Parts: sequence; C-alpha cells; structure tokens
Amino acid sequence: MGNIDFWYSIGSTYSYLTVMRLPRLAQEYGVNIRWRPFNVRDVMVEQNNVPFSNKPIKSAYMWRDIERRAASYGLCPQIPAPYPLGGLVLANQVAFLGVQEGWVEAYTQVTYRRWFEEGLPAGEEPNISESLDEIGQDVKRVLGLAASKDIATGLSVVTTEAKKLGVFGSPSFVVNGEVFWGDDRLEDAIKWSSNGTLCSD
Amino acid sequence: MGNIDFWYSIGSTYSYLTVMRLPRLAQEYGVNIRWRPFNVRDVMVEQNNVPFSNKPIKSAYMWRDIERRAASYGLCPQIPAPYPLGGLVLANQVAFLGVQEGWVEAYTQVTYRRWFEEGLPAGEEPNISESLDEIGQDVKRVLGLAASKDIATGLSVVTTEAKKLGVFGSPSFVVNGEVFWGDDRLEDAIKWSSNGTLCSD
Repeated sequence: MGNIDFWYSIGSTYSYLTVMRLPRLAQEYGVNIRWRPFNVRDVMVEQNNVPFSNKPIKSAYMWRDIERRAASYGLCPQIPAPYPLGGLVLANQVAFLGVQEGWVEAYTQVTYRRWFEEGLPAGEEPNISESLDEIGQDVKRVLGLAASKDIATGLSVVTTEAKKLGVFGSPSFVVNGEVFWGDDRLEDAIKWSSNGTLCSD
Repeated sequence: MGNIDFWYSIGSTYSYLTVMRLPRLAQEYGVNIRWRPFNVRDVMVEQNNVPFSNKPIKSAYMWRDIERRAASYGLCPQIPAPYPLGGLVLANQVAFLGVQEGWVEAYTQVTYRRWFEEGLPAGEEPNISESLDEIGQDVKRVLGLAASKDIATGLSVVTTEAKKLGVFGSPSFVVNGEVFWGDDRLEDAIKWSSNGTLCSD
C-alpha cells in the first residue's frame, strides 16, 4: 500500500479541491494518506512567494480554474470564496490538534465545505463552532487546547519539517521524499506511491 | 472540429512539454491548433508576476516537476536547461515571422529540442541558425526579416491581444474565450474545445 503525506493549510484555495476528493481517491487506489496541516503562509512569505496578492488577472483566473475543475469533480463551490483568511493560523491550529486526536480529516472537510460552499470563512465564527459541532467535538474544549502554546509550537515545528522536505505551497504531496505540488499533481503522487515513476512502463 | 489558440513564448520552461506533445495530441483528438507566439515576459513584468526569479526552492521544484512529467511523455530533457533566455525576444520574433510564413510549429519544436535536449539556448547562436537550417529556412533572410520593425511591432500587437484575452503566462490555451494556463491544462482545453465543459455528463 502506497503512503502519501498530504501537506496543506486551511486557507489555500486549490486545497479545497484536494480536501473534497482525496478520501475517495485514497480508497479507490488503496493509498494511505497522512493529513499534515502546516502554516503555508509563513513559508511563502519567507520565500517571497506571493502568487495572488496584487495580481488581479491571475487571481481571476485562479477562481475560474477552480470553478471549472470543481465542476468536473462534481463539486459546486460559491466562487469566489472569502479570501484571504484572517483566521488561517487558528484554523490550522485546530487541524493540528485534530491530527493528535484523530479527527483532522473530518474537520478539514467540513470547515472547507462551509468556507467554499456557504461563504463562511474557515478559522472564524460561525464556521469553527459549527464545524466542530458537526464532527462531534466540544467547541470550548477544542478552542481552549487549539490556542495553547503547545499547539502553536507544534504547528511551527511541523511547518519547519515541511520546509525541510522542500514543501513551499499547499496542497503538496510527499511520497518517499518526492514533492508534488498542486491539486493537479495528486494523480502523479498516487502513481508515484505505487510505481516510483510517472512513466507507464 | 475543436479550435485551440496556443499562446506561448519560447523562453517558458513548461512550454517545452506542450511544444513537444501538442502536435500528437492535436491529431489524436482532431483539434485544430493555432500557434500564437507572444512576449510573455512583458506581460509578467507588467503584472508583477515573477514566479521563479529569487525563489530557489520553487525553481528547483519546477525543474524536477518538468523532468518527471517529461519522462511520462517519453521525453528526455537535460535538466536544468539554460534559464532564463537572453534571446527571448529574438526567438519569438523569429517564431512570429514563422506564423506568417507557415513554419512556426516546426521552428518552435526544433529550437526547443536544442534548448532542452542539447543545452543550447533558444534565441542565440548556434541554436537559431541550426534550427532554421533544419527546417529548410534561409538563416540570413529570416534573421533580416525577424529583426525588422514590422515583426517587432507585430509581436507587440499580438502580446496586447493576449493580455486582452486574459492570458498572463505561457503556455496558455484559449478556447472560445476560456483561458487554460499551464501544460497541465492542455487536456482540459482539449475537452473544453469539444464539450464546452470539463464535466463528463
């Protein structure tokens, strides 16, 4: 069985596509996925990699591209979703706690659905509380823990780990040290996880 | 029969993948391609869109990504190719003349092959002369015309046309006003040219 580390930040637009289709693909191809939320904004700012801010033409294209591809996956987002997210850090602190407690995948999916399909920014109310409620987590308990120093430090540590792996954007897929960046490389990552190459033969 | 305008600049790295595989795909899917060289550098500088300069991590990823995908297409480039191209403008002026004279596709392919597979930068000697010679064009005649004011102006005019269409990068595919950007959107563009959607049903 292939293994893929799925590095992402709640706050990344293209990651919506991955978050919504990954569980189905993982099952279909028999791939084991580790959900690895990190703080992509820190990495991008540090690397002077700012793809959309102050780029209206490229930003408009990005939304149209997501809309078209979402339709091809059977998804119906409200485009454009609120962007950028003011609550990026908190959203990913919650996700990071979810890794430790085993509910990261469920939380990431429901918070992204609210963000992209209902226009409610992730990492803010009412998205956070509604999402935690939906997956059966106690809101007060989770928010108390997610804002703790341990979790903040933990998110920083895995963000450094992502950087060391060569991850510079979200979503990224790491398979035996190979980095694949972008929802449009998910199929490449799956192929790599079973063949170690993208070639057919 | 679907129609796709293929907007590109010789100088774009990912366009290598498209240039080498496009004629085969066009024939396979019965799509009519118009090769539209333009000056992507002017557009990107104007739009503050500088994806690789001063971004060593992202640049390293770009080369590895091209290498992997090239292998999956049966191509064997020498990675990294010389980059960026000092002769970008001249390379595309020659291509633009080739549009008018009917040899743009052949020239683009042979000059990219020399650039990516032999390490000889496009838009410079010996790449230009060898490429023109290979496709049966008189080097002196072509270089005289390509450097003329008419061709320089013509390239500017089509670059403005590309911008008006919303093209901001290379390669781009324009199908009935829809812009698809990146070699990894070529299949989307082909699908759109026959169905007007990316959805299966």
